[in-house]
Formats: sequence, C-alpha cells, structure tokens
Amino acid sequence: MPGAPVAEPVEAPAPGVSRRGLLGFVGAGAAGLALGASAGLAGGIAVGRANAEAEAAASVYDFYGTHQAGITTPVQDHLHFAAFDMMAGSTRDDLISLLQDWSYAAARMTRGLEVSASGAVGGSPEAPPDDTGEALGLPASGLTITFGFGPTLFEAAGDDRFGISARRSPELQDLPAFLGDDLDPLASDGDLCIQVCADDPQVAVHAVRNLSRIAFGRARIRWSQLGFGRTSKTTAAQSTPRNLFGYKDGTANILSDDKPALTDHVWVQEADQPAWMVGGSYLVARKIAQLIESWDRVRLAEQNRIIGRSKGEGAPLSGGDEFTQPDFAKTDAAGAPSIDMAAHVRLANPQHNGGARMLRRGYNFVDGNNNLGRLDAGLFFLSYQRSPEQFVTVQRALSTDALNEYIRPVGSAIFAVPPGATPGSYVGAGLFA
Amino acid sequence: MPGAPVAEPVEAPAPGVSRRGLLGFVGAGAAGLALGASAGLAGGIAVGRANAEAEAAASVYDFYGTHQAGITTPVQDHLHFAAFDMMAGSTRDDLISLLQDWSYAAARMTRGLEVSASGAVGGSPEAPPDDTGEALGLPASGLTITFGFGPTLFEAAGDDRFGISARRSPELQDLPAFLGDDLDPLASDGDLCIQVCADDPQVAVHAVRNLSRIAFGRARIRWSQLGFGRTSKTTAAQSTPRNLFGYKDGTANILSDDKPALTDHVWVQEADQPAWMVGGSYLVARKIAQLIESWDRVRLAEQNRIIGRSKGEGAPLSGGDEFTQPDFAKTDAAGAPSIDMAAHVRLANPQHNGGARMLRRGYNFVDGNNNLGRLDAGLFFLSYQRSPEQFVTVQRALSTDALNEYIRPVGSAIFAVPPGATPGSYVGAGLFA
Repeated sequence: MPGAPVAEPVEAPAPGVSRRGLLGFVGAGAAGLALGASAGLAGGIAVGRANAEAEAAASVYDFYGTHQAGITTPVQDHLHFAAFDMMAGSTRDDLISLLQDWSYAAARMTRGLEVSASGAVGGSPEAPPDDTGEALGLPASGLTITFGFGPTLFEAAGDDRFGISARRSPELQDLPAFLGDDLDPLASDGDLCIQVCADDPQVAVHAVRNLSRIAFGRARIRWSQLGFGRTSKTTAAQSTPRNLFGYKDGTANILSDDKPALTDHVWVQEADQPAWMVGGSYLVARKIAQLIESWDRVRLAEQNRIIGRSKGEGAPLSGGDEFTQPDFAKTDAAGAPSIDMAAHVRLANPQHNGGARMLRRGYNFVDGNNNLGRLDAGLFFLSYQRSPEQFVTVQRALSTDALNEYIRPVGSAIFAVPPGATPGSYVGAGLFA
Repeated sequence: MPGAPVAEPVEAPAPGVSRRGLLGFVGAGAAGLALGASAGLAGGIAVGRANAEAEAAASVYDFYGTHQAGITTPVQDHLHFAAFDMMAGSTRDDLISLLQDWSYAAARMTRGLEVSASGAVGGSPEAPPDDTGEALGLPASGLTITFGFGPTLFEAAGDDRFGISARRSPELQDLPAFLGDDLDPLASDGDLCIQVCADDPQVAVHAVRNLSRIAFGRARIRWSQLGFGRTSKTTAAQSTPRNLFGYKDGTANILSDDKPALTDHVWVQEADQPAWMVGGSYLVARKIAQLIESWDRVRLAEQNRIIGRSKGEGAPLSGGDEFTQPDFAKTDAAGAPSIDMAAHVRLANPQHNGGARMLRRGYNFVDGNNNLGRLDAGLFFLSYQRSPEQFVTVQRALSTDALNEYIRPVGSAIFAVPPGATPGSYVGAGLFA
C-alpha cells in the first residue's frame, strides 16, 4: 500500500470518500475543522438523523488531547485489541514513521473518515485502495484508538534497537509471575499495543485491520483479542455490566469524572518519571479464561461466598444495595465474617491494598469452543493505573482468592500508554524529542 | 443442573427473576400472555424507557409460529452459531426431551426472560442456579433461536440411533464436495444446530451457553462460530451491509416481506416431502476464510472486475446504481463484457442458475490472528432455501468465480430446519408424531 501522508490532521476530508454519517456536515466545508469540538461535531452529525439510536452510534471522541482517548472515554460495547512486534531489522526511523502514520490514520478513523483522503474508492483504479472499505457508510460509532509501548520496545534481549532504552520508564518492567499464571507467549507481551473500542464491531475490526496494513514491513500483529459486553462501569450513568460468571463487575471502578481519583490513581503526574509519560498511564492486559462449566455447577450460596456479593443485586454480603460500602468487619450470628476471608471483593478492595485502585475497562470474550465442546470464554481484563505497582499489589493480594479455582490467566502484558498527541504531532512524540 | 420443566410456555415469569427490561410489564400479571403479540409486548417494554435506542434493543420476536424465527426476522447485529452432536448412547427419548427442554428455554429467553422460572437467583441457595446470569438486566435484544437437524441425526455410520431414518427428508444429504473446499471436520457437520441472533452479543452468548448447559449428558457442542456485522439485507428498510472485502453484500437478497419469493424459494411447501418439514427450510452454513491481506493488495479496478460491481456505490459494472439490474449482455467499446465472464455477480445471478435464489443471512467473523500476524477473518455464510439443490446449483456455478483466489471454504454443514413450534409443543415435534 502507498505510504499514507503524515500528520495532516486538519485536512478537509473529501466528501466523496467520507463515511456516510459525516457527509452532510463535512460536505458543507469543514476545512480547518476545530478538532477539539467533539460535542459540536457529534451534534452536526445528528442533524437529519431519524432516531436517537443513530445519534448514539455517531458519537465522536477526539483523538487529540491531554490524554489519549479510550481510557476515561465511556466504555464502548466492543473491543479489538492487538499487540504488535516490530519487524526484525526495523529502525528508529521506521518506528517514528509508524507512529506518525498510525496517528494520522487514527485521527481520521475516529472522526468516522476513511484511513486516508483517497480511501477505498478515491485513488487510482490501477492501485490497491488505501482503505479496505468495510466501514464505508458506518458512523464513527464512538471509535477510540489507544496506543501503548511494551518493555521490549525499549530493550529486547539486551538490544536497544530504537535508541530509546535510556528513556525507558523505570516502572515499565515485565510483570512478575503470579500464582496460577498459565501464560501463552502468543497471548502475552508485545512491542506495541493498540486498544480499539467502538460501539460497532465492524468499525473496531476495520481500524485494527487498516492499522495493521499500515504497519506492513515495519511491525506485525503478535496477538489480538476481540471482546464484547464491557465489564466495567466508567460513568455514573452507565449501569454496571455483568461478567460471564453472572456477577456485576466494576461497581467500585474509578469513574471518568472523578478528577481527584484520576489524578491519584490513573494519570502519570509531573512528579513522576519520565517526563514523556506525564499525562499517560500504564496499561495491564490480562486474558483470563473462565472455567464456566465448572462455575455453573457451583451452588448459588457458594458462588456468592466466593465473590462476596449477591448475584442478583450485586450487594455486598454484609448488607445494603449494590453501592453500599462492604463492611468487612461484620460477622454473622455464629461469629463468621459476613464477607468471607477469601472472597474476591475483600481481597481486591483498596482498604486491604494500601488504597491501590485502578481504572478498569475489560471485556468478556468467547473464542468458540474447545474439543470437549466447552466454550472458550473469559474476561479480557484491562486496567489503567499511574504505576504498575497498583496492579501488582492487588494481584498479589488475590493469590488466596477463592475465585482462583474457576479462572486461569492465559495471557499477560504491560504497556506504557503515553499522553495524547497534539494536532500536527503524533502519539509518543515526547519519547523521541 | 436440575432438568428444566418442559413445555410450559405460557407460565407467568416470577417478577423477581425476570430480566429488568420486562419487569414492569410482566409484573402487572402476564399469565396467559398472548405470545403472538410481539409488537404489543415490545411496546409494553418501551414504557418508561428514556430513549429510542433502548426501545430498539427491546425488540421481541415470537418463538412460536408457522415458521421458526431467525429466518425472515430482520437480521440482527450479532450471531452465535453452534453445532451439536448427540452423546454416544443417547436415546430417542433423550433427543425428544432435549428438543422439549430447548424449546421451553428458547421461548423464555427470546422474551427476555431467564432460562427457567427460578433463573439465576430464584432457586435454592444450596443448588446451582438454572440460569448463568450474565444476561440479567439486559433486554431481549431481538434474540432469535433457530434449531436444525443434520443428516447424521437420521443416520450415522448406518446406525438409526433415534428411530427416525425412515422419516428423513430425501433432500437432507451431505453437500457434495465443491472445488476449493478445504474443510475442517471441527468446523463442519453436526447432528443438530442452533442459530442464535441478537442485537447484543452478550444475549446471544448467554443463549448458546445455557442451551449447551441444558444439553449436558445428551448432546455437546461440536463447533461454534461468533459473527458480527450482518452481511445481508433482509428488509427494504435495512441498508446493504459490507463484507470484509469492502463490498456491499446481499443487494439482491430475498426480502422478508416478499411472500411470493419466500414461497417459491425458502419455505418447504405442502407439495414437498416430508410432511413434517412443511413450513420449514434447509439451512446451509459455510465458513469461508477470506485472504484479506492478499485481497487488500489487489488494485481497485481488478477488485471491481472480480466482484462485478463498484466498490463505493455497489452498482453493477454495466451501469446504474446499486439496485439497477446487472446487464450481463452489455459490452464496452472494445467488445468485452462490462461484467466479466468470471465476475462473482454474473456467476451467482439467478438468471444463470435456472432462477435459483436463496435467503442469505451471513455474518462477518474475525477469530483473532494466525502465527504470521494475519487476521483470521472471513464470512460465515448462512442461506435458507426450500431445497438444498438451490445452493448446490449456485455453488457449482461459482467454480469459475474469479473471487475463489481470495477465499477458502473451511467449514460446511447442512441442516433441515423444521417449521415453528406451537405453544404447548416443541420444535421438531412433527418428526416424532
């Protein structure tokens, strides 16, 4: 494919190749469009739409900003996550140009546009199209594209391939081994990652496919994961979704409008190191197989004991409703703790982990079935934190979790997610400045 | 799990265990609810909902009727398809009870209810819950559950396990081998199939999981497939979706309100054999891998030539717009056919296949990536026809399809889909009458 032009985020999309949802708006002349005005843009798209469903589907989140989109963005319905490795022999310039090309394409696609101005049908008939075309006519669908850097990007087998090892964040280290880990190398690690979230899976898949295509010759997919049914609540308006064990998950998550908690627990601050990560975050990705057939044979009272909440309401077993704080000191008439000592909610709770909290935005997955006819299903856990230590602290506390009998971590990865790009620049530019 | 009660489709769901979206309605006393009144039911659900999106998600399609739902039903956004094999040693009674239990559960779940009255939390705390719970609080989401019978159900290795071989439809034979087939036995065939479609993937997955659970000891999943982004248009109101080659697919599909075409091409008629299939249809399922990286390197003009339509508009290369009939006789100035002799649309067109048409409702799939970093992606083709011969005719015609270089059929199956069940009975009852 012809190299996509780099860093021209404010170019006017050609009306003939823009996705249908944007046509009316950009056709009126959108050169110099203020990219910060997501709300206005979404409003423009909505004009003439027949119903609120289409309006919701047309959500547009700004690619540029202080932070990357896709972290505090209200969790979308679908995920396509891909980890990439740089190709053998690729250079620092290859890496920089890749990040530039990816940023250019991501800025366009998240606006509901094709991957380049010529797109699927606007180029020469004698050349392969820039855009693969399956998202033509679909609205932006809340698409976010979030980029991260793995430890091996900075140093692989002692090799500083890209001349950035001196700038590596001291925090960006391989996660330690955790009890129960049964990790598949082909579902773990990676030089780079792209988290793509959207309310339409075809839009998410289109983004990963086209970013993978842009990477041709420089990087290739190491592993990827599709997910559905967000398992976390990130805004007060969202109801708490359920994981594949049938329990509400993410009741106590950090909400996207809780600025003090985001500052304390999610965003890398000025006081932290290195400077190029300020405004960024650390992403932990864990593929956790759930042994659902075994779980499904557990009696309800035992399921509740293991989780520490009721299955229906999601209330802590110490009483109240879903949003009541668990009372870990409470005991029953026999003197036993109302919330078991090995219950998941007890062990994961910040008050038992030095206040460690994370912003979670995981997804359920079903990857078909195994040869025994059992569904190959589970949780693709994603958490963002100011320091990986927050995740490590909680994960170590979960070593005695009663839930461990029914889950098996099969993939694991960590990435430094740099701050958002500014228009005219690209994601991760600070690393190379 | 305790056996679910059989064939009580009109029982009133207990308000405490019904999904949240139905609470207000069924709580008012829904015993004897007229199951034919889907529109009224959806309207009832919508009361008090804040927006049109939720209303759309609450679509309810009646499980009972002349035909099974999920065939002419407007194609939903998500698919979870599962083929099952009966367990060794299972009996005719096992098969009948399985179909009864499945019908009972399907009638409930398609109404947005849990799999049984006690559900996820309404049973004894000392027993495993009947329902796995991950769809609690989710609306019906347009769920349809469609059952089919494979050739091996009637006779496997000469064994008439269930005493039904004499009632087998003469048409229900293994599909012949087609040029290019590279079939994986673990993505092919099966004694039974369940096609589950919904606008929420969590609702679809929940249905397959719970039906699989009900089958425990009687049948187990042989293979399964998730899909998204319907690739067919089945109502005039739906826009034509795009496949992963970026082309509109299904422009000429049989629409669900085209009664004469449904009679001629989709529904088994009184004049056909056997009698228990009248009102049913034959389902062909084909998993077709698309070599998308190869395709993406093909120049646009060649892509258009292979398909026979333009990528953007979807117009036939003989001119007009998407819905203009292709003019296969038209030639260009040099005398060459405007639509290539090997173009997909030419070879697939009914006028070159003795008028053979099918109702298609396939889905795109992405199953992750292979070890080369390429996406494992394609089309899960599903077509319904009055006779399998319609599919065979068209598929044979496609043996010279220019598209074949870029696709590889990796799974194949055929099923007899019986007519719809009547309340108080179960799907396939006619086969055992």
